[in-house]
Amino acid sequence: MRISELSARSGVSVASIKYYLREGLLEAGVRTAANQASYGEHHVRRLRLVRSLLDIGGLSIAHVAATLAAVDDDTTSTHGAFEAVMRGLGEPADSDPGYSNPGDSDGETAGDAYTEVREWLADLGWHISPNAPAARRLTELILTLRRFDFPVTPGSFDTAARAAESTAFAEVAYARAMPDRTAAVETMLVGTVVIEQALVEVRRLALEAASARLEEEP
Amino acid sequence: MRISELSARSGVSVASIKYYLREGLLEAGVRTAANQASYGEHHVRRLRLVRSLLDIGGLSIAHVAATLAAVDDDTTSTHGAFEAVMRGLGEPADSDPGYSNPGDSDGETAGDAYTEVREWLADLGWHISPNAPAARRLTELILTLRRFDFPVTPGSFDTAARAAESTAFAEVAYARAMPDRTAAVETMLVGTVVIEQALVEVRRLALEAASARLEEEP
Repeated sequence: MRISELSARSGVSVASIKYYLREGLLEAGVRTAANQASYGEHHVRRLRLVRSLLDIGGLSIAHVAATLAAVDDDTTSTHGAFEAVMRGLGEPADSDPGYSNPGDSDGETAGDAYTEVREWLADLGWHISPNAPAARRLTELILTLRRFDFPVTPGSFDTAARAAESTAFAEVAYARAMPDRTAAVETMLVGTVVIEQALVEVRRLALEAASARLEEEP
Repeated sequence: MRISELSARSGVSVASIKYYLREGLLEAGVRTAANQASYGEHHVRRLRLVRSLLDIGGLSIAHVAATLAAVDDDTTSTHGAFEAVMRGLGEPADSDPGYSNPGDSDGETAGDAYTEVREWLADLGWHISPNAPAARRLTELILTLRRFDFPVTPGSFDTAARAAESTAFAEVAYARAMPDRTAAVETMLVGTVVIEQALVEVRRLALEAASARLEEEP
């Protein structure tokens, strides 16, 4: 198909498609004339993926490029690519030099809390790479909640972890059943970013419903 | 306390504190001399809240200012303030004129899917404000998943909704037990933004663990 049809099919403007081509987010089409190229179904799919990462995942263009490079690196296994994608997703968007995370008032260090999180993961029987950013970020979030006097430990997330575990198996199995490795990793990536945001919205709706009910019957 | 101590206690640089004061994210301290002001515990708490919204919630400065205005508007009930906060959180960070969300190949409109979501919420018995952005966003996310051929309906989130419901009641009840209305809404806001991100990280860890296990035993 031509770039105009690719635009119509994907909902992405021609100007944005050209920008993504320049930034390496999208593979070039097959050249058919001096000023024309032809695009296939995988371009439509890739454009939707790029838009999901930008709009729903909130990633920067550079970040999307790095994440897609991990998807496209055929030298790694499906799981290796997924691990690399998760590392990419977990990197902080931008750090603020005007802010340093203070320890809490009891002088608890991030190191202690990180050890708690790693032990909790081991108890769950989860095999998590030593440099997984999600474990570091969960630690930071637990410390933040404690600074606001929420009585939180990794064990507070036991129920959530067991619920996530059963749906995670179904999701990953669904993705791995895709016809090829790229489609499998793409599907895992979309599932991660889009489904997690959907669950965030479900949770916000639950909080609003709970707040409404508790306002009526305090 | 002086601004230097406020900085040490909150982990926010003096330059950033002065910036937040100018932008109205932080109430002015009590002036004690021509060039000096005194700050209290509520300034420490408010600074932590501002940093959580910026760093964890990913909100813009203008967005944080609008959200805090809803927290500080004493003319609304606790639930009214929380509803306003949720509306603030749900507003899109920035819209991209180069992108229009296309309908899927069956010509399904966002309106049909939105009706499905509202009916699902009614079946759950959840009282959700008619302009709640979370319901619109959940609709968009379901449409995105369908475009990637995920077989998803609102009912796919039944289990997640029931799990979220029971923890939401506990969280909102905890927040409403705070000594004053501002503390209650602040706590609901922190709980929303920080706990939802913690649950996202737990889910990512579950996916990585599932991916590792399925790689070993396909």
